[in-house]
Amino acid sequence: MAALSSIHHLRLRRFARSLTASGIDSALIGYSPNLRYLCGFTGSSGVLAFAAGTIVFFSDGRYLQQAKQEVRGAKIKIDPLPRNAALTWLKEKKIKRLGVEAANIPAADWALIQQTLRLPAKLRDAGKLLSEQRMIKDHSEQNLIRHAARLGSSLFPKALESLRPGTSENEVAAQMEFAARTAGAEGMSFSTIVASGPRSALPHGRASTSHIPRRGFVVLDFGVILSGYCSDMTRTVHVGAPDAASRHLYATVRDAQAEAVAAVKPDRSFEEIDAAARNVIAREGLGKFFTHSTGHGVGLEIHEPPRLGAGQKGKLKPGMVITVEPGVYVPGKGGVRIEDMVLVTERGAEVLTRGDRNLITL
Amino acid sequence: MAALSSIHHLRLRRFARSLTASGIDSALIGYSPNLRYLCGFTGSSGVLAFAAGTIVFFSDGRYLQQAKQEVRGAKIKIDPLPRNAALTWLKEKKIKRLGVEAANIPAADWALIQQTLRLPAKLRDAGKLLSEQRMIKDHSEQNLIRHAARLGSSLFPKALESLRPGTSENEVAAQMEFAARTAGAEGMSFSTIVASGPRSALPHGRASTSHIPRRGFVVLDFGVILSGYCSDMTRTVHVGAPDAASRHLYATVRDAQAEAVAAVKPDRSFEEIDAAARNVIAREGLGKFFTHSTGHGVGLEIHEPPRLGAGQKGKLKPGMVITVEPGVYVPGKGGVRIEDMVLVTERGAEVLTRGDRNLITL
Repeated sequence: MAALSSIHHLRLRRFARSLTASGIDSALIGYSPNLRYLCGFTGSSGVLAFAAGTIVFFSDGRYLQQAKQEVRGAKIKIDPLPRNAALTWLKEKKIKRLGVEAANIPAADWALIQQTLRLPAKLRDAGKLLSEQRMIKDHSEQNLIRHAARLGSSLFPKALESLRPGTSENEVAAQMEFAARTAGAEGMSFSTIVASGPRSALPHGRASTSHIPRRGFVVLDFGVILSGYCSDMTRTVHVGAPDAASRHLYATVRDAQAEAVAAVKPDRSFEEIDAAARNVIAREGLGKFFTHSTGHGVGLEIHEPPRLGAGQKGKLKPGMVITVEPGVYVPGKGGVRIEDMVLVTERGAEVLTRGDRNLITL
Repeated sequence: MAALSSIHHLRLRRFARSLTASGIDSALIGYSPNLRYLCGFTGSSGVLAFAAGTIVFFSDGRYLQQAKQEVRGAKIKIDPLPRNAALTWLKEKKIKRLGVEAANIPAADWALIQQTLRLPAKLRDAGKLLSEQRMIKDHSEQNLIRHAARLGSSLFPKALESLRPGTSENEVAAQMEFAARTAGAEGMSFSTIVASGPRSALPHGRASTSHIPRRGFVVLDFGVILSGYCSDMTRTVHVGAPDAASRHLYATVRDAQAEAVAAVKPDRSFEEIDAAARNVIAREGLGKFFTHSTGHGVGLEIHEPPRLGAGQKGKLKPGMVITVEPGVYVPGKGGVRIEDMVLVTERGAEVLTRGDRNLITL
């Protein structure tokens, strides 16, 4: 516990410093992944208030015991209306520039805060500072993510055991989710995707009552939550013998994914990684079927900054954890996606998810 | 499909009428449960724009096929940046008062919309109109919720099969979730709560690696998603022989829950239902251990308006679906909660979840 508590102190201190550096004298943080990151609180309702060098966590009576067990680096105050209590506390501190999570706080809440504290309309975005901090995973996080990715990877062989013509997509998902839970996962990081036959052309084809056909692609996209951290991985297999066009589709995506993974190293821009995958797919005449960006950050949330897409000029830094997941979707026919989680290291990259990337035919 | 499509037309028309009645000439709706409710879209990214008697659904290329299959009552436009495309479209319509979902739209998005459309700072809350509409479930929704509640209820006997001293809470949750999936659920409506022994005193004790003790309460709070609609139900059982204090705790909550369910009928206020449960618990000297409100609405979301708590003056109306779930939590000892879903009918109430409410000892 000593190690964990000092991590939260460090994170809080770093965040407080970046507030000061941005000329923000106070902050109100309520988005739950941010609360978990900063002070360890895993409940769904609470706010952290920063002002005058003090940090206070406000929550309601339901979370008294949990807050005492979990929260590090902040005083705890319990109030039936924790947000109002936090505003009263901030008012007493005579704050001038309040940072809020502009991308998460509802417009109505912000309007109320402005009124209550008589603040100018201009939003000071403390959320962006925090999301920049969270983009770089510290060593404790890297370890937790490694464990989540390993557990997540173990579901692919489980899926193969139950995948056969006639089985419903939901049954395959059920087997994977059961395996995840019994292996200790807290839950799935998103609705498991099992998209078979023509449904494989739906980039977000959540498992359905459809049955696995005798012939066609099956896209499996799945992830677990372990100690709060998400895994994310995709493999595509083929039921029955693939024709030449399907083999070409698969080989193109596999090559595109390998190129993009090989491109990952510090100081490469996000759009360069995207281009590495996109160029391979375009060269094979399939560019118009690659309809999404190449990847995204992953951590306490399944989708976090950065986004690896065209126009994204930011650069990879050691400690970032991203997905690399090009895909090609031919409407009415089928689709292929291959995805791994990659940790950017000092010298290059560490691929965190495991599982054969060659075409598996069932 | 004809029936379903006419339902979405009806819902859209009713919402458009209530916008007009509130002096709002246009709206931008992007919160996914609202999109699903209004036009049938089940994806995670899109916006509905209302202006000049026209309704357009904007989404990006990933959702082209899905939008065509699902969306009813609105034109479909695909754009790589759907929100920007919607703003351009709204600008062309020379709108004056734009309704947004004030409780859901992030402050940063609202600031951007204001700038782009040169709108006054005042928020017009279209979300509240919509949440009032959604509080009253139409017949199609009532049927879907009945099915979800029935499937959800079937998990309680499954839990009892695997519940025994030494089993981990996670294993019990895994069995319940597997049963849910194989019975056709799209997923769970929230992280399954299996809170045993002293953990039963945590109102939100998600299943953990803790093992079921030889003696003590186990709170099971669980729900499924079926056709998009959530179920929600809690039962508390006792492992080993309960002592007199535990029997009293259980009987008090059971009586409180029965009183509150019996109080449900049209025109009763939300706080009356809460008081019906709270009075029973207070009378037994346990008032300070009942730390949350008595219930909440449930539908496309697991927590929706109304809230059944002190100070809530609104009134029950036919078509509302609420939970009734008093609980008593004695720190360090244990807790009891009993919860059912109840549909308000023209003449009273229909309890949608099933399962013994008497104390089960394992």
